[in-house]
Amino acid sequence: MSEQAIASDRRAVPGDSEFDRDTAVSRREPGVYDIDLRAGWTIGNAVNGGYLLAVLGRALADALPHSDPFTVSAHYLTASRPGPAVVRTETVRTGRTLSTGQASLYQRDEHGDEVERLRVLASYGDLDALPDDVRTTATPPALPPMDQCFGPQDGPTPVAGGSAITGRLMLKLDPATLGWALGAPSGKGEMRSWFGLADGRDADPLSLLLAVDALPPTAFELGLSGWVPTVELTVHVRHRPAPGPLRVSITTRNLAGGFLEEDAEVWDSSDRLVAQSRQLARVRLGRPANRP
Amino acid sequence: MSEQAIASDRRAVPGDSEFDRDTAVSRREPGVYDIDLRAGWTIGNAVNGGYLLAVLGRALADALPHSDPFTVSAHYLTASRPGPAVVRTETVRTGRTLSTGQASLYQRDEHGDEVERLRVLASYGDLDALPDDVRTTATPPALPPMDQCFGPQDGPTPVAGGSAITGRLMLKLDPATLGWALGAPSGKGEMRSWFGLADGRDADPLSLLLAVDALPPTAFELGLSGWVPTVELTVHVRHRPAPGPLRVSITTRNLAGGFLEEDAEVWDSSDRLVAQSRQLARVRLGRPANRP
Repeated sequence: MSEQAIASDRRAVPGDSEFDRDTAVSRREPGVYDIDLRAGWTIGNAVNGGYLLAVLGRALADALPHSDPFTVSAHYLTASRPGPAVVRTETVRTGRTLSTGQASLYQRDEHGDEVERLRVLASYGDLDALPDDVRTTATPPALPPMDQCFGPQDGPTPVAGGSAITGRLMLKLDPATLGWALGAPSGKGEMRSWFGLADGRDADPLSLLLAVDALPPTAFELGLSGWVPTVELTVHVRHRPAPGPLRVSITTRNLAGGFLEEDAEVWDSSDRLVAQSRQLARVRLGRPANRP
Repeated sequence: MSEQAIASDRRAVPGDSEFDRDTAVSRREPGVYDIDLRAGWTIGNAVNGGYLLAVLGRALADALPHSDPFTVSAHYLTASRPGPAVVRTETVRTGRTLSTGQASLYQRDEHGDEVERLRVLASYGDLDALPDDVRTTATPPALPPMDQCFGPQDGPTPVAGGSAITGRLMLKLDPATLGWALGAPSGKGEMRSWFGLADGRDADPLSLLLAVDALPPTAFELGLSGWVPTVELTVHVRHRPAPGPLRVSITTRNLAGGFLEEDAEVWDSSDRLVAQSRQLARVRLGRPANRP
């Protein structure tokens, strides 16, 4: 407890953190927002899909009468690049318990024409208004203690495929799911990790949209490498996360026809399942996993 | 084989069946379609969400350059009623492998005003163009033979909550997941069933959109009853189903805060995982399960 108290003096907090600054949207007119997509959230040349989801999620939280994302479905159209972008939202329906909105992110191409990057349908509500019944049969991922897990910063075997986004995140992966980084993928479609923001900011519903798409892809443990672009990603936020690190597990059970699904669970420090997601992604087959 | 051959003489076929007639949309102008939602697909007073998804799926198959739904995300806004409706589609992006579209279904209220019932974002492709690699670690649901399973038509314990839609479907539920119908729900969030269309029409990608939302809700086996309205439902169609009955399993692992997720898997007669889905639904807590 005392260690945590000391450390918390230096930690960023929701509202004043890297994640908050980099996902901040500026209202140009009702329902329309400007944003500068930050290069710090890229994987290779492309902006991370979870960061983009958090940007659109923040715009919708402003545009809709409810502020918490309950279920967000994104279809990714073209790869986003760092730089200016505009978010256009539409309020589809407002209700007492739930409101539904739509949002799209656009950037300009080399000819100055607007190109749509992704489109989102989302239903928002108030997490604090939900009853506190919990009948979860799912169990938290079996993760070793954080000091027995490994992140991109840890030697002597740095995680392959390092990207700018790794500097924004606190990722500590279960060694049992890190075989791919040593050239020996397990063949199981699983990845498990401790997750946080590098500056110590605690999770909130918006950062959960990032958490579900921030681990290395399960495809790596299936012996594949290269880009695994998301076609569609849907996130359910089920509870406001407690302070402290999150645990994220992702699982693939059906790699077929050049596509795979990736299911994520996000658990908070009080053993509550706070978010679930599923995505459909394309895979490039036949290549060996990256070696460090 | 001979029995099947005889039976197939009387079976409806894709393109000429109850499902095809009742989901047929009539193009009014490019991208706009008329449909009469049929009373045969209702549960209580509301039109089944899977049937609605198939209706929008058919409109998008016409509007987009690709004809197979790969991933379809629906947000349900208001309950649909039998009767006339209009589907408005928008082509969001067309690509070589995938095209993305949006569709909404509208009906008129008692004042003649249009009310949006559900909105869908979907990415379409060509299932027959996919490579035939399969690395599925998921396993088909453990279902007893069909003659040891029970459907709404079977006595002496008819399934409670019978609705018009049961006459359109061939449902044979695993007795191990039917405790709720006898007043003794298992407490496990699982439901497993053989699935087909009552007139014998074989499955195709469009009817898979129906299959994922056609079983009694897992909530019944959790001891709940009443309506479990879908907030959002996303379906991935992964392969064109082989002829013959499907097996559908649905699972709930996180009933909390008045909401639950329901994951469905649909397996075809050749043991291929042809569709996966997840929905977020609202639940009414505290009531005992219906007794027959």
